[in-house]
Amino acid sequence: MNVPEKSRNTMRTVDKALNLLNYFSTEKPEYGLSELAREAGLDKATTLRIMASLGQHGFIEQHPETRKYRLGTSLLRLARIREASFPVFSIVKPVLDRLAEETGETAHASLVAGSDLITIGISEPQRSTRVFVDPAQLLPFHATASGLAFLSFAPEERREATLRSDRLPQHTPQTITSTAELGRRIDRIHADGYAQASGSFEGEVVGIAAPIFGWQGHATGAIAVATVASRATPELAHLVAGKVVAASVEVTRALGSEPHRNVLKAERRFNGD
Amino acid sequence: MNVPEKSRNTMRTVDKALNLLNYFSTEKPEYGLSELAREAGLDKATTLRIMASLGQHGFIEQHPETRKYRLGTSLLRLARIREASFPVFSIVKPVLDRLAEETGETAHASLVAGSDLITIGISEPQRSTRVFVDPAQLLPFHATASGLAFLSFAPEERREATLRSDRLPQHTPQTITSTAELGRRIDRIHADGYAQASGSFEGEVVGIAAPIFGWQGHATGAIAVATVASRATPELAHLVAGKVVAASVEVTRALGSEPHRNVLKAERRFNGD
Repeated sequence: MNVPEKSRNTMRTVDKALNLLNYFSTEKPEYGLSELAREAGLDKATTLRIMASLGQHGFIEQHPETRKYRLGTSLLRLARIREASFPVFSIVKPVLDRLAEETGETAHASLVAGSDLITIGISEPQRSTRVFVDPAQLLPFHATASGLAFLSFAPEERREATLRSDRLPQHTPQTITSTAELGRRIDRIHADGYAQASGSFEGEVVGIAAPIFGWQGHATGAIAVATVASRATPELAHLVAGKVVAASVEVTRALGSEPHRNVLKAERRFNGD
Repeated sequence: MNVPEKSRNTMRTVDKALNLLNYFSTEKPEYGLSELAREAGLDKATTLRIMASLGQHGFIEQHPETRKYRLGTSLLRLARIREASFPVFSIVKPVLDRLAEETGETAHASLVAGSDLITIGISEPQRSTRVFVDPAQLLPFHATASGLAFLSFAPEERREATLRSDRLPQHTPQTITSTAELGRRIDRIHADGYAQASGSFEGEVVGIAAPIFGWQGHATGAIAVATVASRATPELAHLVAGKVVAASVEVTRALGSEPHRNVLKAERRFNGD
């Protein structure tokens, strides 16, 4: 489409506004104006005007004394509408509860949102040692089983963007930091239908994940079990992988989509044992 | 501030983008492009460009076949960050549970977001007949106890805007539809420190509500008990009002603010009995 200069400028302002919301996190839930403008690389006047618009619509709030900004309650309302209309949490939660009970390990699910994988549900087993999954922690694509399972079935542009990135941050000595190695790993996971990652994001954790698919047939997230490394025998890994793959197929179908044939093949392989 | 023409135009686009999200509701969770453009009073090309920006940031999603739009998962992530950093749900929930248990009726809490009061928590009593509060239903200011309690302690602009409105929609024969009557009612509630509304939104429901206050000393929401009309004796209404007022004071303080002196006076009145 032939978009005139003026329209492109106004659209860039929408992008800036939506992007400003992404600076707020559980680690950094409040920003002063100068600080936010600096981080976002915008001038203060522009940032101030955008924050005024966001504030009018309840997307951000400003403390009357400190003048600091934080995320607003309109987000709670819109999230509630989305979940009431197209439930993801309520479809995923019972599946996670069953996974945690059957495997005795922590089960969690995540969805891609923008350029991150976000946790949408966690279920912990009833035992004294278990993996703690921080609900606010974003899951890096290259360093977690969920991220790798997602990436291996993601739209090509997304996969290519990650494989082209200058730098894959190293979280532990086991993190893949070479894009060539990441490419090979992704091809392998694509063939297997599920991903396993040992200590590549946090030491002492072995993650096993399978992709959740969306309407377009690409991965939109992942369902995973995080096991305590000292318990992760090949037998447990095999049991967990079978359950995780079956859970991912169940969730994908409950969301109205169809899993990739390689995931279905994996499911048959595990169930045929 | 002296804002140049160009900036004002770009800001209007941000407002349009944020406003488009407000058309999505539990009653109407999906929109086609033409339909959304028509409802919002925008041309299709502008709407298309805004939806593309919103989509890139995960605020909306588009079905690949029907081409319909719905709210996206970025909203779930941002809502989660807001609640993890500044919990409202987790502060309000135990208070509602106690209110429901002590009164034997349905307790709920709401917050203003944009121009509506949204329900943020509900607790139902353990009995066979009880008021069902739809979590997705927006609460009109003029027709519900929560709305009246909020309005009576709202910022002056908000109160004036409601009192200037052309039309107060009639939900039942008991709904206040005259702005003059609404003004008198608000003055009375402001003096009392809490609101009671009988069958003005749904017949057979008596609501009793007290305001929750924010940092600026204005109401930001309300806490309420909805009783089945046939049980709403003066004795029950008195008991409920005392508990609701005490709960609103507790929640306001837990959120780091201070209630209006009229609400504190009401609390002393009820506790002094």
